[in-house]
Amino acid sequence: MFYDPAIETVPREKIRDIQWQRLRDMLEKVYQGNRFYQDRFKKHGVALEDIQDLNDITKLPFTNKKDFQKDQEEHPVFGTNLTEPFENYVQFHQTTGTTGKPLKWLDTKDSWAWRARCMAHSLAAAGVTNKDVLLLPFNFGPYTAFWGVYEAAQHLDVLTIPTGGWTTEQRLNSIVENQATLIIGTPTYMLRLAEAAQEEGIDLANSAIRVLILAGEPGAMIPSVREKLEKAWGARVFEYPGLTETGTYAFMCEHDNQALHIIESEFIVEVLDPKTGRSVADGETGELVLTNLGRTCSPAIRYRTNDLVRLEKSSCACGRTFGKLIGGVLGRQDEMLIIRGVNVFPSTMGNIVEEFLELGNEYQITAYRRGDMDELKIQIEMTPSSKDVSELIATELKKRLNLRVDIQTVPKGTLARSDYKGKRFIDERSKRSSSAG
Amino acid sequence: MFYDPAIETVPREKIRDIQWQRLRDMLEKVYQGNRFYQDRFKKHGVALEDIQDLNDITKLPFTNKKDFQKDQEEHPVFGTNLTEPFENYVQFHQTTGTTGKPLKWLDTKDSWAWRARCMAHSLAAAGVTNKDVLLLPFNFGPYTAFWGVYEAAQHLDVLTIPTGGWTTEQRLNSIVENQATLIIGTPTYMLRLAEAAQEEGIDLANSAIRVLILAGEPGAMIPSVREKLEKAWGARVFEYPGLTETGTYAFMCEHDNQALHIIESEFIVEVLDPKTGRSVADGETGELVLTNLGRTCSPAIRYRTNDLVRLEKSSCACGRTFGKLIGGVLGRQDEMLIIRGVNVFPSTMGNIVEEFLELGNEYQITAYRRGDMDELKIQIEMTPSSKDVSELIATELKKRLNLRVDIQTVPKGTLARSDYKGKRFIDERSKRSSSAG
Repeated sequence: MFYDPAIETVPREKIRDIQWQRLRDMLEKVYQGNRFYQDRFKKHGVALEDIQDLNDITKLPFTNKKDFQKDQEEHPVFGTNLTEPFENYVQFHQTTGTTGKPLKWLDTKDSWAWRARCMAHSLAAAGVTNKDVLLLPFNFGPYTAFWGVYEAAQHLDVLTIPTGGWTTEQRLNSIVENQATLIIGTPTYMLRLAEAAQEEGIDLANSAIRVLILAGEPGAMIPSVREKLEKAWGARVFEYPGLTETGTYAFMCEHDNQALHIIESEFIVEVLDPKTGRSVADGETGELVLTNLGRTCSPAIRYRTNDLVRLEKSSCACGRTFGKLIGGVLGRQDEMLIIRGVNVFPSTMGNIVEEFLELGNEYQITAYRRGDMDELKIQIEMTPSSKDVSELIATELKKRLNLRVDIQTVPKGTLARSDYKGKRFIDERSKRSSSAG
Repeated sequence: MFYDPAIETVPREKIRDIQWQRLRDMLEKVYQGNRFYQDRFKKHGVALEDIQDLNDITKLPFTNKKDFQKDQEEHPVFGTNLTEPFENYVQFHQTTGTTGKPLKWLDTKDSWAWRARCMAHSLAAAGVTNKDVLLLPFNFGPYTAFWGVYEAAQHLDVLTIPTGGWTTEQRLNSIVENQATLIIGTPTYMLRLAEAAQEEGIDLANSAIRVLILAGEPGAMIPSVREKLEKAWGARVFEYPGLTETGTYAFMCEHDNQALHIIESEFIVEVLDPKTGRSVADGETGELVLTNLGRTCSPAIRYRTNDLVRLEKSSCACGRTFGKLIGGVLGRQDEMLIIRGVNVFPSTMGNIVEEFLELGNEYQITAYRRGDMDELKIQIEMTPSSKDVSELIATELKKRLNLRVDIQTVPKGTLARSDYKGKRFIDERSKRSSSAG
């Protein structure tokens, strides 16, 4: 299903026209009223006149998270990436602060509606309609993801059931009693709800839930995780990636659960060699760089996401012309490890570990430093009755990644977890000692 | 400040014209599409033609909470008070369930926007503008009150900071860091935040907060509570009352902190003798009965609120022509006690007790039954250093209410409290034994 069929199936050359028109409009406003970009563009020596077509975007400097963090530190409270007067801003969100001080981001009514429309592309692609009932199993803190989904659901006339402050049990009962058809959350929390349902004797697989929308962590594209979730919930699993700084930029369609469509009508995508900053060829892995086109009030222009992706502009059975990120987000650039000469991402290892774990069991990968070398250990949770899978996992890691890893088993419930995001990767490489081993 | 000056200062006879026009429009739609009211009106023998002017509203039967609860039990999931097709509903809320099974209430996009406009009357009356920053210190569960405020703030372009899932300390830090100017919550939680700030050495009185909006419990009109809050926060205190079933129907203006203006452009108000169901004279105490005019999709028509009020149609220094509830909600009809021949409300006693308590200390009134008589005890919290005020309270209750009450002191922290609503009154009168004494 499409949210906006005319746009989603537009010929590729037209997409470029749309992007150029909107980039130009945005830059005009930003050059006029946005101090953050005014300063940067001036420092970089790029005038508005220098940007004459879409290719000229490469003349503009990159931005990254640190730039915005520094700006907010130097210009409290909200920094200078504000194109409009303060009175126009109505939405405040901030990042979770896993990498430094939380970054605040403000939206106006217009840009918030733009964000909802981006998310509406994703919901429609998952077959969501106004007949659906969406349960929202979270507390609505200052983090943007879930608010974005709430807003998009309102935009599509989906009935929403907010359950902030409720226990897992109350939420499960509400799913059943109110015949919710959709639910959204992190893969970690969706697995936890499924586990709790099993304990309570609630048959989620036969509930009205038909679609799970995953956010916050990768999951839908990892076959072992997807299978566990689809079986436990009796539902299809969809994923959308997004960042506080950029908005929701991609979604999964019903025809390909191994890729994400970029919303190219709203985002300009570049995929770059992280070292040189130059474009890689179509289909090559590189860092995702995003420019959003509908958030003129506080835009991200050439924003380096730190995420590694592989972009293909091939066609899709769904009929959309939007380019696809094959395999979704492949890993975080700054998480890449070099273990005895092998380049590897924690997420890749995690996917292999997941294949061997039962519902509700967790794992944790820890990277640490011994001398000049990166080292790894993986802890996996087991119940007394589980089969010891550590040997199997070790063999598989050796076979598929050519990697010898120290695997330790721990009793179920040992590893820290939150309701929302699992701590699957711990990076202790900046610590001086090698005590993690 | 006005949200809609033309309406808020309209001559009273014009208010009646507006009410009649809107009641007529609503009844037409309800008679056509709402099974709940179709059944009731038919059973009661009232046809649409019987309603020829505003006075004819008394021909329509009353509704009360039990009617809606029964309807939802008999017609799951959402009952039959739905004038429009299910697809049109986007908002789900439910009551907290303190009096029986939680009552669900659905809204369409239109009725939700109507609810936000009602609340916008209240915010504007408290001087709120688009320059304000509103901190929302709660989890956004399925209860309607806080969502209503969020929506109204969006409607007025107020920047909102949601802090669901956060601790009291995180919220206090966010108030200071983000220079929030408004905050909303129950009096209980606002006192608790103030107490926590004191412990953390945070000077709320000198923060940017200038307005406290109270909801969920009475508080703003109780002088001792208001004074404590105004002093601790260095802010003005406003109150708005509302019910899931009806919406926000009244607000406090800047000129009178001892009364609430009814939003008569959106609500028809009747004040009735609870026993006979007949109107009491202007200025007499009676049960508040509400008909909302903008929520055709799931209206409350002649809804008996169980709240006792005193309505005066006198003028106000603010210039509004809307009638006023003098002293706000005076108490709940079904909570009235007869103690040795004296009629008394727990809330009236509570107001007197409050005058003697320090910030953060709680009290609890318990009514129980001995033989055929209602009896009372009051427990009050004291720190080791507090002066024992039980004698003073007993004397004051005797003097002002002619009531002898057993007062017990307990150490601070003994009495149950939640973040949101204090349990100030416990009714054990339905229990057989008199063990509560």
